[in-house]
Amino acid sequence: MRIEIVAVGTELLLGQIADTNSKWLGEQLAAIGVASHFHQAVGDNQERIVLALRTAMARSDGVIVCGGLGPTHDDITRDAIAEVMNVPLERDQAVVDKVRGMFSGRGREMPDSNLRQADVPVGAVIIPQTKGTAPGLICPVGYKVIYAVPGVPYEMSDMFQRAIAPDLRVRMAERGEATGVIASRVIRTWGMSESGVADTLADHIDQLDAVPGDGAGTDRGGEGDRSGRTATIAFLASGIEGIKVRVTVGADDAGAASRLLDDEEARIRDILTAAAGDVVFGIDDEAIEDAVARAVAVDGLTVGLAESLTGGLAASRLVNVPGASRWFRGSVVSYASEVKFGVLGVPVGPVVSEEAARAMADGARRVLGADVGLSITGVAGPDTQDGQPPGTVFVGLARPDHGTESFAFTVPGDRERVRQYATIAALDLLRRTLAPGAAG
Amino acid sequence: MRIEIVAVGTELLLGQIADTNSKWLGEQLAAIGVASHFHQAVGDNQERIVLALRTAMARSDGVIVCGGLGPTHDDITRDAIAEVMNVPLERDQAVVDKVRGMFSGRGREMPDSNLRQADVPVGAVIIPQTKGTAPGLICPVGYKVIYAVPGVPYEMSDMFQRAIAPDLRVRMAERGEATGVIASRVIRTWGMSESGVADTLADHIDQLDAVPGDGAGTDRGGEGDRSGRTATIAFLASGIEGIKVRVTVGADDAGAASRLLDDEEARIRDILTAAAGDVVFGIDDEAIEDAVARAVAVDGLTVGLAESLTGGLAASRLVNVPGASRWFRGSVVSYASEVKFGVLGVPVGPVVSEEAARAMADGARRVLGADVGLSITGVAGPDTQDGQPPGTVFVGLARPDHGTESFAFTVPGDRERVRQYATIAALDLLRRTLAPGAAG
Repeated sequence: MRIEIVAVGTELLLGQIADTNSKWLGEQLAAIGVASHFHQAVGDNQERIVLALRTAMARSDGVIVCGGLGPTHDDITRDAIAEVMNVPLERDQAVVDKVRGMFSGRGREMPDSNLRQADVPVGAVIIPQTKGTAPGLICPVGYKVIYAVPGVPYEMSDMFQRAIAPDLRVRMAERGEATGVIASRVIRTWGMSESGVADTLADHIDQLDAVPGDGAGTDRGGEGDRSGRTATIAFLASGIEGIKVRVTVGADDAGAASRLLDDEEARIRDILTAAAGDVVFGIDDEAIEDAVARAVAVDGLTVGLAESLTGGLAASRLVNVPGASRWFRGSVVSYASEVKFGVLGVPVGPVVSEEAARAMADGARRVLGADVGLSITGVAGPDTQDGQPPGTVFVGLARPDHGTESFAFTVPGDRERVRQYATIAALDLLRRTLAPGAAG
Repeated sequence: MRIEIVAVGTELLLGQIADTNSKWLGEQLAAIGVASHFHQAVGDNQERIVLALRTAMARSDGVIVCGGLGPTHDDITRDAIAEVMNVPLERDQAVVDKVRGMFSGRGREMPDSNLRQADVPVGAVIIPQTKGTAPGLICPVGYKVIYAVPGVPYEMSDMFQRAIAPDLRVRMAERGEATGVIASRVIRTWGMSESGVADTLADHIDQLDAVPGDGAGTDRGGEGDRSGRTATIAFLASGIEGIKVRVTVGADDAGAASRLLDDEEARIRDILTAAAGDVVFGIDDEAIEDAVARAVAVDGLTVGLAESLTGGLAASRLVNVPGASRWFRGSVVSYASEVKFGVLGVPVGPVVSEEAARAMADGARRVLGADVGLSITGVAGPDTQDGQPPGTVFVGLARPDHGTESFAFTVPGDRERVRQYATIAALDLLRRTLAPGAAG
């Protein structure tokens, strides 16, 4: 079963609002094993909505059209659907009464424009409105179907769960399609390039591709229509969030899918670790700061920062973790050199150097009363500083019983990205050092 | 000129990431007077990318296809374009050399998979990469065109501005299309609600609507093809970035558009200031930190922060401003109470209070050697602290010759949003205090 999503609204084309509805619907369809190979957005123009719907109906088994069901003159999705179905609109008295009742319940007279919302293409079934005034529609077109829902996100999601998902399940069963689940897991890495991750996993992907099955492997399918039972793998370069490896599996039920994902995650971790060490820092929504919190918890240590280059960015990420107050002491954002000298005790001299990074880490430990001091200094650009080019980053790390170490990195990008890369590089170093191999 | 946007990536269909690129491109096209009647999203599947491109080429004058140009096996946009153009791919040695150079510049060997990025459909022109490894493409198809750009947002936007927008202007001129311009300006405010801004400007909008013109006023048509000559006004609630008022005008050339925008900006500033005081903090991309930098420059003061609630977020925004090192000394991120007591000299006791905020501001001035100390303490939630509910924010401000003041705010949202609102509220206070009426 392939369902195309068509979002209606000129404001989407003009980029005035983001199309979060299509994103949400795509997620929901994937979760119930319905394929979605195309999304479209189209403006409030009847001719073009009709064209978009006909295009979608030609290449998919059905459409969810979202938006344009409201009461104003530019809400014309109903008219467009009637044109595609080649039927007239008929006013539904029950909907009129219901909308009138909602107005009078709030002590208001219903403006006549609301009558439009009761116009229904002949042959369509109404999805009753429970949260707004505009009803949804289920419109059979031959053996295919057009679902229409309002563009207001909570009205849309309510109607999808209450009426569309059940209707889709019935149609899939009628077509004899497996009503299994498709599930994904994201394995997050830091320290390898996208092509490096891809090359390292290439043999494994070839093996998956070689598994006999129905469109499984890396068929690039993965858009929900596979009935295969092996994994597909995709890569996502996420800039300052690292390189993500997404594994997708199809299975009969959620439990079986979860077991397949566990197996595949273990295999990918093994391959990446053998090739490049401890590069996997998290799963799904886990960010680098969550990995740091886990690593810190192993020995129950407290952490203090000294930040120059990153100007507080590293601290602001650590405080995102719930419970950070148990282990995070704070940060001395020593942007001015005099603050490095006066507060942190850095020897007067160049402040972009490994020596300065170590002195900053020691200063952070001492001033903030922390077990572990982490420091970041470097050059954001565009100019060089202390003879170092933009993108130069030095990280200092002071730990009990280990002395104070320093590390050099070179990161790409403009000022903002240099800061963000430097932040994740420093936090990744902290994670790896405090709990080698224990993260993720 | 009608350009369709085609976003490529299975992750878009699965709802794993939001399609922010299409939104951004839609905005940019509208700004240069190019219509965009349809957007599509399609997965990493060659057959379907080809179908999406052919559909788009049939109903528009050209396509911007975004994503699928990377080095991995699922980056197949190049192959799909070659199929639509009905030409082979040819490896471009200059691109190979450039990508290899980027790797060796970072002391790394180029993985072979990167060679794919140098494959160019015969007849296509390369848009050189300046920020990443994948080049963009300009591919003529008869008298129409396919532009291909990477899905990484900053690479995409760079190539649009550097190569695609100029090429579109040439094509529009060749078609004899009005090369008038549509220009927008965003007036950024902090301190009023969206409906408050809308109500305040309602009379002015009514006056604009009453001006006879071609589809001007607040008419919603406008998918980039408006020829009206008066201003339209829209509101955009941008959460932690405040409420934005966007003014859009059409004019014969950039100079005329700029004069219309100047007039309209002045009128809107007057109306908002008369109703609510100094709420306009910036124009277009100017963020609150830019407004702070301007305000600080008036008297040549230096600034130091003491942050608890915001955990370094305020500092990390200030260092975004070029030249911040001239006036920004640093921040003491005193997340642990002991750091407030020991480093900043806050009296032992409740740390979420106006007294603590004032002591922190004094401490920031003293410890960081700054003229002005600004402090932020409060409760991010979900639990209360020192008897204060989540969303409570106290800001301290210590200035030469003014003594030390404190201010209380209540802000909405979860932990993350409370921090972000507190940051902008504190920085807005600093801006207003240091240079009343001089901002924007």
